[in-house]
Amino acid sequence: MSQPVDTAVSAVRTYIAQHRVAFLDDLTEWLRIPSVSAQPDHAPDVRRSADWLAAKLEETGFPTVEVWPTPGAPAVYAEWPAADPGAPTVLVYGHHDVQPAAREDGWDSEPFAPVVRDGRLYARGAADDKGQVFFHTLGVRAHLAATGRTTPAVHLKLLIEGEEESGSPHFRALVEQHADRLTADAVIVSDTGMWSEDTPTVCTGMRGLAECEIRLYGPDQDIHSGSFGGAVPNPATAVARLVAALHDEHARVAIPGFYDGVVELTGRERELFAELPFDEERWLRTAKSHATRGEAGYSTLERVWARPTAEVNGIGGGYQGPGSKTIIPSSAMVKLSFRLVAGQDPEHVRKAVGDWVPAQLPEGIRHEITFSPATRPCLTPLDHPALRSVVRAMGRAFGTPVRFTREGGSGPAADLQDVLGAPVLFLGISVPSDGWHAPNEKVDLDLLLKGVETSAYLWGDLAEHWRHAP
Amino acid sequence: MSQPVDTAVSAVRTYIAQHRVAFLDDLTEWLRIPSVSAQPDHAPDVRRSADWLAAKLEETGFPTVEVWPTPGAPAVYAEWPAADPGAPTVLVYGHHDVQPAAREDGWDSEPFAPVVRDGRLYARGAADDKGQVFFHTLGVRAHLAATGRTTPAVHLKLLIEGEEESGSPHFRALVEQHADRLTADAVIVSDTGMWSEDTPTVCTGMRGLAECEIRLYGPDQDIHSGSFGGAVPNPATAVARLVAALHDEHARVAIPGFYDGVVELTGRERELFAELPFDEERWLRTAKSHATRGEAGYSTLERVWARPTAEVNGIGGGYQGPGSKTIIPSSAMVKLSFRLVAGQDPEHVRKAVGDWVPAQLPEGIRHEITFSPATRPCLTPLDHPALRSVVRAMGRAFGTPVRFTREGGSGPAADLQDVLGAPVLFLGISVPSDGWHAPNEKVDLDLLLKGVETSAYLWGDLAEHWRHAP
Repeated sequence: MSQPVDTAVSAVRTYIAQHRVAFLDDLTEWLRIPSVSAQPDHAPDVRRSADWLAAKLEETGFPTVEVWPTPGAPAVYAEWPAADPGAPTVLVYGHHDVQPAAREDGWDSEPFAPVVRDGRLYARGAADDKGQVFFHTLGVRAHLAATGRTTPAVHLKLLIEGEEESGSPHFRALVEQHADRLTADAVIVSDTGMWSEDTPTVCTGMRGLAECEIRLYGPDQDIHSGSFGGAVPNPATAVARLVAALHDEHARVAIPGFYDGVVELTGRERELFAELPFDEERWLRTAKSHATRGEAGYSTLERVWARPTAEVNGIGGGYQGPGSKTIIPSSAMVKLSFRLVAGQDPEHVRKAVGDWVPAQLPEGIRHEITFSPATRPCLTPLDHPALRSVVRAMGRAFGTPVRFTREGGSGPAADLQDVLGAPVLFLGISVPSDGWHAPNEKVDLDLLLKGVETSAYLWGDLAEHWRHAP
Repeated sequence: MSQPVDTAVSAVRTYIAQHRVAFLDDLTEWLRIPSVSAQPDHAPDVRRSADWLAAKLEETGFPTVEVWPTPGAPAVYAEWPAADPGAPTVLVYGHHDVQPAAREDGWDSEPFAPVVRDGRLYARGAADDKGQVFFHTLGVRAHLAATGRTTPAVHLKLLIEGEEESGSPHFRALVEQHADRLTADAVIVSDTGMWSEDTPTVCTGMRGLAECEIRLYGPDQDIHSGSFGGAVPNPATAVARLVAALHDEHARVAIPGFYDGVVELTGRERELFAELPFDEERWLRTAKSHATRGEAGYSTLERVWARPTAEVNGIGGGYQGPGSKTIIPSSAMVKLSFRLVAGQDPEHVRKAVGDWVPAQLPEGIRHEITFSPATRPCLTPLDHPALRSVVRAMGRAFGTPVRFTREGGSGPAADLQDVLGAPVLFLGISVPSDGWHAPNEKVDLDLLLKGVETSAYLWGDLAEHWRHAP
């Protein structure tokens, strides 16, 4: 590395060191707001979270900050134009809502009372996604301070939505409504992670998501399993047989048409995945699981990053309390989620599921399927110039080679890709052990500050290497 | 019928007509006692019910009447020896506790304030089981009056327990404790019903019951279905596949060894079932179900009465609340009940299930199985002399041919069979519309008096046709 880079690095790091405490205090304050979008009684908290972030972005220096209402929870939008009109425009995406959390789920401390233990900040939303949204606030300030600028090197836009953990039901409409404000040359999604503390990586794609709840109805009320057992269809048995029919003996999804359009992995991508220091034992510890299991013919990483899946998120029916109750239940349900990969159309999957379910059911079992709004998959070309900038910025922050991953999870980034026609890139510093959607979610403070640093380098690199409308 | 029979019938009927009012007044008084064994605050009422019955049995003439305590609710025991030491000994079983009931459950009158409407006595316990216990008191008096005896023609014993509606948790121990007092040549269970008002029937068997709860454990906590989905075993999927594997494509239970020892229906039994005026549409309305479904090769009645089953009483795992939660759950459970038929050994079934479950599970899924105490099946041979006496006594009372049924449910009668080594027979006059365990439970007064009459004929018939220790 040449001397000017070292100077820039030093200036960024000095600025971050000086503002670290206030930054963490602010983040802690935000994490105290239980902005759980899936629980209606937390709607006021989600609104409060949006207002809190808007105020903080104004304080950061964004000249334009707006809270955008939706029929559900509000999003926060901010703009900070570059002095050079020819600079590229970058839209940062994240979310300020969080997954549900309760102490009794297995948290060691209150999920909405953030605490630092061993250099890690524990709270619901610490990694997913408040921490990873918030590092851009100090990042852009460090960028300005280190380069002596008063405005960012790129036209910077932020869109931080409030319904990501509820499936972003109004996000696409919001993006369509404000498409003229949101135009960008690239979208930087700040809602993913990297390989590990030691192996910084850039994610090049996310899976999509289609979800549904299927309810099956048998007898009009719970009936006596002695008087009627063995002679009428049981909806709990039917739901189990439905779920069992989801996968064939190779653990492939057995719904006809499910794989239509799937973009298969290239040899180069399989090589890049194979270069990662994958340790199955360690991965299993992170997954808190006791064996791997998945589609035949694919590695574990290929299964979670590049292959579509069908998973049961919840199943229920009949008596689940203590002791026994000798009934045939009147109904049963299952919540299914399908992860989708590039080339799969959520609407097509929805139709395939809708056609498949009734064909699995015995006579006398009625069904209802409710689909949640779907999320499309997305994939960044490996040779995209903005992707190369992200890789360089991250390399400077971490001081080690940056490798490539994908993300098994899903986000509404694909809607931005669709509506704005801009490529989507991913910048994340969370690690797999951060416990997204799980008890004891946390973010490592050192990594969080590497995120700040990456953000600080990225805007200059993009302006330098990638001109507007190339 | 020969003249002596007509005389006997006439004498019995005359006696019953003379004592009908006092009998119903007494029963009404007993039904006012809310002896709900499942509700701890009714424990004094269950004790009061036992004391009331004991006093009434003394008044009836039983020389020995005892209230037998248990760790739960007390049972009532009574003995009335025959003059002839060589007469057979018959033990009548019933229960004096009742199901919970509250006006707001849908009763048209107070459940513990008996009322007669249209020749039917409405009250909790009217049919299940106080009415069917109590008809023996007038029955034995009518037997004595009509035959000029001072003691019954058989050695008569009564055991009326107080915890049947709570699963008879202390019944087997009570029977074992008093086995020497309870010895009998036959057990008459007065706690079942008959086909319909127009079709008197004798039940020849009850199914047994083995129940278990199976818990499956996958990841150590709920994990993100995006990050890990498709690559680790999901316990909710595993529980579904387990349940789906319970039955083969012919709806037969697929657990190896499950059918070991099953006493198959004889051609004669199938003919007897087929003689019943079975209306599938009407049966489905009673079952509140929308189709029949069961083991291939058997009719609906054969499926519920004479075939063993595996039913799911409850299934659960993961997120069952509103909206979605994209997790792979850490655990899932299912409650299974197996109805057993004659020849099946609950211990053998338990072992078969215990061996089968782990063989269905993928690597990485841990399991626990908890079995509840089992109830054995019981079956009266069609050619048993005591059964023939019951059929004759009932035929005289009803004046129409008596047909045969079985009972799909399970009861503690099998404990008497096991411990005492005596065959179990069933004598009941309740009909399916009597609303056992439901609001507006009732007993038809004409049928109740036919029960009295059957009881009056039975003891003489047994003594005449079936000598002790044949």
